[in-house]
Amino acid sequence: MLPSGVTYAERFNGISGSAIRAIFKVLTKPGIISFAGGNPSNDALPNEVCAELSREALLSDGKRILQYGATEGYPPFLESLLAYLRQNYRFPVEKENVLPLSGSTQGIDLLCKAFTNPGDTVLVESPTFLGNMQTLRIYQQHLVPVESDEQGVLLGALENTVKQTHPKLLYIIPTFQNPTGRTLASERREPIARMAEKYGFLAVEDDPYRDLRYAGAFLPPIKEYDHSDHVVYMGSFSKIISPGMRLGYMVANADIIAKCAIGKQSSDLHTSNLTQAMVDLYLRRGLLAPHIAEILPGYRDKLNAMLSELETFPEGTRYTRPEGGLFIFVAMPEGFNAGDVFKDAVERGVAYVPGTSFYPEGGHENTLRLNFSNSTLAQIHTGMGILRELFTSKLS
Amino acid sequence: MLPSGVTYAERFNGISGSAIRAIFKVLTKPGIISFAGGNPSNDALPNEVCAELSREALLSDGKRILQYGATEGYPPFLESLLAYLRQNYRFPVEKENVLPLSGSTQGIDLLCKAFTNPGDTVLVESPTFLGNMQTLRIYQQHLVPVESDEQGVLLGALENTVKQTHPKLLYIIPTFQNPTGRTLASERREPIARMAEKYGFLAVEDDPYRDLRYAGAFLPPIKEYDHSDHVVYMGSFSKIISPGMRLGYMVANADIIAKCAIGKQSSDLHTSNLTQAMVDLYLRRGLLAPHIAEILPGYRDKLNAMLSELETFPEGTRYTRPEGGLFIFVAMPEGFNAGDVFKDAVERGVAYVPGTSFYPEGGHENTLRLNFSNSTLAQIHTGMGILRELFTSKLS
Repeated sequence: MLPSGVTYAERFNGISGSAIRAIFKVLTKPGIISFAGGNPSNDALPNEVCAELSREALLSDGKRILQYGATEGYPPFLESLLAYLRQNYRFPVEKENVLPLSGSTQGIDLLCKAFTNPGDTVLVESPTFLGNMQTLRIYQQHLVPVESDEQGVLLGALENTVKQTHPKLLYIIPTFQNPTGRTLASERREPIARMAEKYGFLAVEDDPYRDLRYAGAFLPPIKEYDHSDHVVYMGSFSKIISPGMRLGYMVANADIIAKCAIGKQSSDLHTSNLTQAMVDLYLRRGLLAPHIAEILPGYRDKLNAMLSELETFPEGTRYTRPEGGLFIFVAMPEGFNAGDVFKDAVERGVAYVPGTSFYPEGGHENTLRLNFSNSTLAQIHTGMGILRELFTSKLS
Repeated sequence: MLPSGVTYAERFNGISGSAIRAIFKVLTKPGIISFAGGNPSNDALPNEVCAELSREALLSDGKRILQYGATEGYPPFLESLLAYLRQNYRFPVEKENVLPLSGSTQGIDLLCKAFTNPGDTVLVESPTFLGNMQTLRIYQQHLVPVESDEQGVLLGALENTVKQTHPKLLYIIPTFQNPTGRTLASERREPIARMAEKYGFLAVEDDPYRDLRYAGAFLPPIKEYDHSDHVVYMGSFSKIISPGMRLGYMVANADIIAKCAIGKQSSDLHTSNLTQAMVDLYLRRGLLAPHIAEILPGYRDKLNAMLSELETFPEGTRYTRPEGGLFIFVAMPEGFNAGDVFKDAVERGVAYVPGTSFYPEGGHENTLRLNFSNSTLAQIHTGMGILRELFTSKLS
């Protein structure tokens, strides 16, 4: 109960915390097989290397690391981030175009703070990442879903919705999308950049899964087609080094970066210098590419194992077949309710996230999101077997 | 320039970034003596110990540290934080009453997010910490200054202002206040807790300097007088271990903590696990008390050196005589303009922060804030000599 006389802010009306975070708390049951969450595999977390890098950074530049830093970033990290971006992307980028973030989620918070007013419209994929939907809702944004197919957002639907709603932002995860694992087709990318320019909204491209590609060729991010600064690109080291370190970054027009930095001053002032220093060394020593190469085969095997288990699911089960990322999205036949079945699944030792939470408009109770990265192959086979049996019994 | 069609949020009207952060950028001039900022002494930053602790933490619990963590905190840190709080404070505290913050500044952001609407009133000391004033302004709060004397906020003035303005929050730094170094008198503390209860506002007690006491006895925080959950206490490890790690905490009613945790989910999700793990070990091994004991004499000497230099300043110079903290606040005779003189001071190699930035109502151009912790004794004597000469010349 709140103290007498104290009331919640209006922006918290209807906000009750992320469904995924609440599910995480349920997952303390010993031995549970969790296809919920979006955690990297523990095997993919380079803690021994990080142990040496953190020690080395603190011994060689420890006074600067432990002292207050600049909101704009720890200088050596900015250098190596720029080198990394220039090596891997074809968009132009200078120091004034990047801002280190305490996880790329912070980017949405800062963009909302600096560029949106309550009641503004934000276009989102449907389904989309529920964590960032919550952020948008706290900023009292009007979320309007845009129709997608297997190739991502439909351009005609997008343009019609833009014309009707005059959005401030489009929030889009073009590659190995959360929760579907889908990738926006190559030929749909440039038109989105053009639309953002033509209609004057910011296209916020959230791209944390890009490097986890198990098949097919890399596609250029939307940002590479941006000639008018209407695309804000957000990257993250969460899925390729460590999420617990909380380090991502934003790439944008210098004035967008400057205003977001002001917003960051009054949030966490700056991202932990030690985290930035560790990733600086990780990049500077060329450790990232071999690390990614090392973790990909394991993730690919897990994806394939889960897909092969899904082949044996009841008739009428549909699911995405991602080329990368961490998630498969499943639609069971109509009438199935993934939320109702969730409790039974957890009792039998398996967890997932009901898909309805990812839809801005709700509904779609027959869907669920499965994460494959944070389970062993044996857990995938066992857990999917349990789900198959349970789901089959619910459908009969 | 912003991309076409893109506009700033209304909450950013008149927001141009913290004056201190802007001053930091000026301070790249080689050899400058900076009495600006609020940095701990580099000598007080235990980087060698932290190097070993970070390595040890990552080797012993690295998978958990590098993985996603709970918004509510890294479990071992929560344990040692509770033990630390119970040992040092007499307010009751359970796990549900604490939230790790990415610096205690984040606490103001989260409280504003969860409990204030645009146009609400927040009472602040005058002068007060400008960083948090900026945060309050971004949340479109109406800042109302409360009159103070050498003993801190005047209770009569506070109660009158509360009756007139029905504030949502009182933001107060009771001990070694920023920017004045003043400490709220013991007998004024309980009445503030009672007033918060009687009138139904939250008293936000920001207490990062408490342990930097060079003279006098510890005073109980306002939170120790709180029997109705109207006091939110914020502590920080920035001034006693490291600000660059970004680790503070909030102590409050469980429902306040729960709502702030939801706000934190959509900001940085959780504070860096590694930072929490390092401070966990620091506390668990009993390193904090000896570290504080080790750094206090140096800070005391610096405070005294700066105070003795101020004795030689022109007649009519007034200044605070703090018993702890990092700052002395100086009022030069009327007519002196610390902002105008700032540029000359920097040219002569010395920086400070003009005091006007700390006043919610502006004015007070004759005042300035001096930080003594981040300079050597020699720099204090040299720098204060330069300021004395410069200020004297401006007054003649």
